Amino acid sequence: MPIQLFELAGRDDRRFSPYCWRTRMALEHKGLAYETVPARFTDKDLIAFSGQERVPVIRDGETVVSDSWAIAEYLEQAYPDAPSLFGGATGHGLAKFLNVWADRTLHLALIKLVIADIQDHLDPVDREYFIESRSARFGKLPAEVQIRSEEDIKAFRGAVSTLRAAIEGQDFLSGDAAAYGDYIVFGAFAWARAISDYPLLKADDPVYAWRERMLDMFGGMPRKAPGYDF
Amino acid sequence: MPIQLFELAGRDDRRFSPYCWRTRMALEHKGLAYETVPARFTDKDLIAFSGQERVPVIRDGETVVSDSWAIAEYLEQAYPDAPSLFGGATGHGLAKFLNVWADRTLHLALIKLVIADIQDHLDPVDREYFIESRSARFGKLPAEVQIRSEEDIKAFRGAVSTLRAAIEGQDFLSGDAAAYGDYIVFGAFAWARAISDYPLLKADDPVYAWRERMLDMFGGMPRKAPGYDF
Repeated sequence: MPIQLFELAGRDDRRFSPYCWRTRMALEHKGLAYETVPARFTDKDLIAFSGQERVPVIRDGETVVSDSWAIAEYLEQAYPDAPSLFGGATGHGLAKFLNVWADRTLHLALIKLVIADIQDHLDPVDREYFIESRSARFGKLPAEVQIRSEEDIKAFRGAVSTLRAAIEGQDFLSGDAAAYGDYIVFGAFAWARAISDYPLLKADDPVYAWRERMLDMFGGMPRKAPGYDF
Repeated sequence: MPIQLFELAGRDDRRFSPYCWRTRMALEHKGLAYETVPARFTDKDLIAFSGQERVPVIRDGETVVSDSWAIAEYLEQAYPDAPSLFGGATGHGLAKFLNVWADRTLHLALIKLVIADIQDHLDPVDREYFIESRSARFGKLPAEVQIRSEEDIKAFRGAVSTLRAAIEGQDFLSGDAAAYGDYIVFGAFAWARAISDYPLLKADDPVYAWRERMLDMFGGMPRKAPGYDF
């Protein structure tokens, strides 16, 4: 039986959770059979069996794991003969740093640029929940956050320039071949692509070329997912 | 013949270059025999043989390498049987990200808190060079930069909180054992310790405990280096 991945979904089946993208790429990397189950923000009942309220959740036979980082660690341990997500203990340790940086720095910079676009791509039943919960977090409405001020754009470009320097001389953040560190960061771009046509990267940016390489992985699976083309 | 490490030195032999500390820890990690050669900012002639003007520089027999990242890559390649700095290709790739983050985010936040303290610990012949070059970079005198404003302290604490989250559940940034990723970040704290008594970390901070573990490495070598105790 394939692994089930419960994944955040919006209108027109757009999958826009950066964390679910990390898990989806990890499952592909491991070459594991899986099926995705779309879940909206308000479909809390659908994942109640996991004992918490957030996706991604995977069900692998009797095993249920939530939280993208915990899922990656579970997959690495449960399928040691499949291609490694971390490339050993040191790579595992260092991927954690990238995970934290993406969660805090990259995502915060990115959400300010696309939060109203998320709202526009939600299933109607999720709109009220999204607007209320995000307005509480930011102290204003999504449409008031997404003004793409010079300062907000600068913060995002700062994060991108860190990524650019990190891939100088190497095709991937993880070196010559993509691994979980790349999926962590790609999750952010896959999220944005699903719900926003805002051009985050210029075509001559090495980070753009990196993103292209990521979109081509696994037979082009990420590119075939519903989203905007650049 | 031991490897020679040309290392930035201030008054009372204080070694305060974060990049030289990365190299020193890497040499220790590899268990290689080395000797350090102190170089002041204005001792450009001393390292002219390297074809550039910045430390660290190492001389290993006929081989001369400058730039801490290039030195780490050289040591890993030249001494493959000694303990690994990167733990494989993925760890190598991901360490680059941490290298970039430390150079840009951590160092920038830190230097604003200690730049005048550096000036106070220089060999007198370096003072003019330091004040001129740093004033050009920041647009004001070191003493005017180091005001430890709420905003500057907040920026540093933000960087520390990223580190704190990254070591949650693991003793080192590189996982269960220290490796080059840890030396990258430790370089910043070893630098500060050499020239400033400003308390960067609180004793109950897990990052403080991590720094203690780093100071104890290699028979306590880092702790024995001239600097301030906390």
